Amino acid sequence: MEGAQRLREDYPWIQTPLVVGAPMRLIALADMAVEISKAGGLGFIGVGTDTSNLSSDLQAAAKLIEKSSLTMNHDVMPIGIGFINWGADLDTAISLIAQYRPAAVWFFAPTSISSLCEWTAQTRKASSRTKIWVQIGSMKEAAEVMHAARPDALVVQGTDAGGHGLVQGASLITLLPEVSDNVYAMCKEEGISPAILIAAGGVVDARGAAAALALGASGVVLGTRFLASPEANISKGYRDEILRASDGGQSTARSKVYDNLRGTTGWSETHNARGVINKSYVDAMSGMDEEENKKLYEEEMKKGDAGWGFEARMTTYAGSGVGLVREVKPAGDIVREVRDGSTAVLEGLRGSPIEVKL
Amino acid sequence: MEGAQRLREDYPWIQTPLVVGAPMRLIALADMAVEISKAGGLGFIGVGTDTSNLSSDLQAAAKLIEKSSLTMNHDVMPIGIGFINWGADLDTAISLIAQYRPAAVWFFAPTSISSLCEWTAQTRKASSRTKIWVQIGSMKEAAEVMHAARPDALVVQGTDAGGHGLVQGASLITLLPEVSDNVYAMCKEEGISPAILIAAGGVVDARGAAAALALGASGVVLGTRFLASPEANISKGYRDEILRASDGGQSTARSKVYDNLRGTTGWSETHNARGVINKSYVDAMSGMDEEENKKLYEEEMKKGDAGWGFEARMTTYAGSGVGLVREVKPAGDIVREVRDGSTAVLEGLRGSPIEVKL
Repeated sequence: MEGAQRLREDYPWIQTPLVVGAPMRLIALADMAVEISKAGGLGFIGVGTDTSNLSSDLQAAAKLIEKSSLTMNHDVMPIGIGFINWGADLDTAISLIAQYRPAAVWFFAPTSISSLCEWTAQTRKASSRTKIWVQIGSMKEAAEVMHAARPDALVVQGTDAGGHGLVQGASLITLLPEVSDNVYAMCKEEGISPAILIAAGGVVDARGAAAALALGASGVVLGTRFLASPEANISKGYRDEILRASDGGQSTARSKVYDNLRGTTGWSETHNARGVINKSYVDAMSGMDEEENKKLYEEEMKKGDAGWGFEARMTTYAGSGVGLVREVKPAGDIVREVRDGSTAVLEGLRGSPIEVKL
Repeated sequence: MEGAQRLREDYPWIQTPLVVGAPMRLIALADMAVEISKAGGLGFIGVGTDTSNLSSDLQAAAKLIEKSSLTMNHDVMPIGIGFINWGADLDTAISLIAQYRPAAVWFFAPTSISSLCEWTAQTRKASSRTKIWVQIGSMKEAAEVMHAARPDALVVQGTDAGGHGLVQGASLITLLPEVSDNVYAMCKEEGISPAILIAAGGVVDARGAAAALALGASGVVLGTRFLASPEANISKGYRDEILRASDGGQSTARSKVYDNLRGTTGWSETHNARGVINKSYVDAMSGMDEEENKKLYEEEMKKGDAGWGFEARMTTYAGSGVGLVREVKPAGDIVREVRDGSTAVLEGLRGSPIEVKL
């Protein structure tokens, strides 16, 4: 509850429970970020490792915000920016953070803790109202990050998440309570304000959101679900594959294969990515030579939308909740559905103890 | 809510939300099963693959029940029995089920769907009041099992679970809602009564239990947590390792290594087990020859309790929630803590929407 209050102070346009749009690299851009914030959520632009289009993305977002019911008069731009720190250019990022003052920045996978601290310090200097979110995937990471960088929020990512995260990990069911206990104990000991905990990884609908709140989160991040919104900057083939795939624990897998084929090889050994199993993955598991697999991947790129599917080779990053994504829905409607629905789920469960006493 | 009512009708001594003790093979025996049921939960005896001691375990349980506040006058013995079906002897099992009429049997990893149907049919014939629970780890398994065997309950096991489960899978966060949607739709279509859904895998405390209820479960299974109860039939070395390990996504892993070393090799390729990472695991990952690793394991067995630990070789099966297990507590107290606590967690979250409207 305390977390919800802090969130409403920090991001005055939001409604709680807070629904956040994941900064999906080159997929979540101005359209998606602004639509999510307009619905009372917090949208992020997914810049990833390449800041070269960030200026025009922010310009586009500023225009959309100007035309919307959102106002800029909270001293900040009511969206966030998500960086993959190992690849992103610090100087470009900081100069745009200073210029646009986003409500939040989301840092992920820095080359080192000291690099993270550099990003954090420079961001605070460039825009004191911009809140700093850092994504972590283990208790150890949470403790290191809290201790060194003291972010405003920790994005706690469980292993069901789509796209990049730790190779080895636990789901939110165990990770979130363990991080929560440890972060609160540590912050109490060090006399600092604990970070807000935001849950990511496997939250697709109202039930997942309610579960995350029960586990100790103050807000929830959705990624895979927003892939099936008109605002997602993805090809039809990718989106169709999201709608097709079901039984996500079986139809998706964590792997380095997709990065290797796509040439996005700057990731550390500690990270890989979850995607829908396809022919590239099956061939790699069967021992196909990487060069051969890459050649087939590059040929597949010419097929357009037909390049996606179980028998095809284009990459479909998605979380294990992909089977719960069954229709295309505007991003704003998703935010409202999940927020109102999670409250309804929790209200519905209230009956339980009363029944017992009857 | 409907699920809770059905549970109270089927198991009259329980209180909801239902807390279940996992049938941990040779660890959850009469003591643990009865203490869990005495506290208003449902305890299972973990027979596993070997029914040779089941008769004496049930006799011991019957004596404990006789001395307790639990009564046998519900027509059933107020505990369950958990089988690992590929290895368990059907005839012995059925004759003891007929004799003791357990409240439930829990079937897991049968050699085939037709074998599962054989177990199910014979159990129903031997003891019509005994409820049939079947453990599944994917939507596909859930659909196959429901269609063919029509169990009374599906135990939906997420990948955070300790011990055996599917090699590949999702956590409860996504698996439970997806199974729930599909089972309900399928049962509606086929005009049959849907199975009760029971969540297993990563539930350690009140927060995990509340989350599972939000995701659609009617009851929750705890395994790892009960390892740190006086009723668990384990060595001190094993229990100490459970209390030591933390950051479970990093300190545990799913693997075939432990089965191979221990010679429990009857498991199908689809299954492996999660345990705390130790020297056997690290050596296996570094490419040590299996015979050599096995020899070292067998030498370690002579060390007694000192054989467990990060630098040792005895197996510590545990779920990714192992870091949330911090003290030894009687099984009955764990049941009450998790049940009452989950209600408190859900009540605590009620504040959220009201605050918004202020």
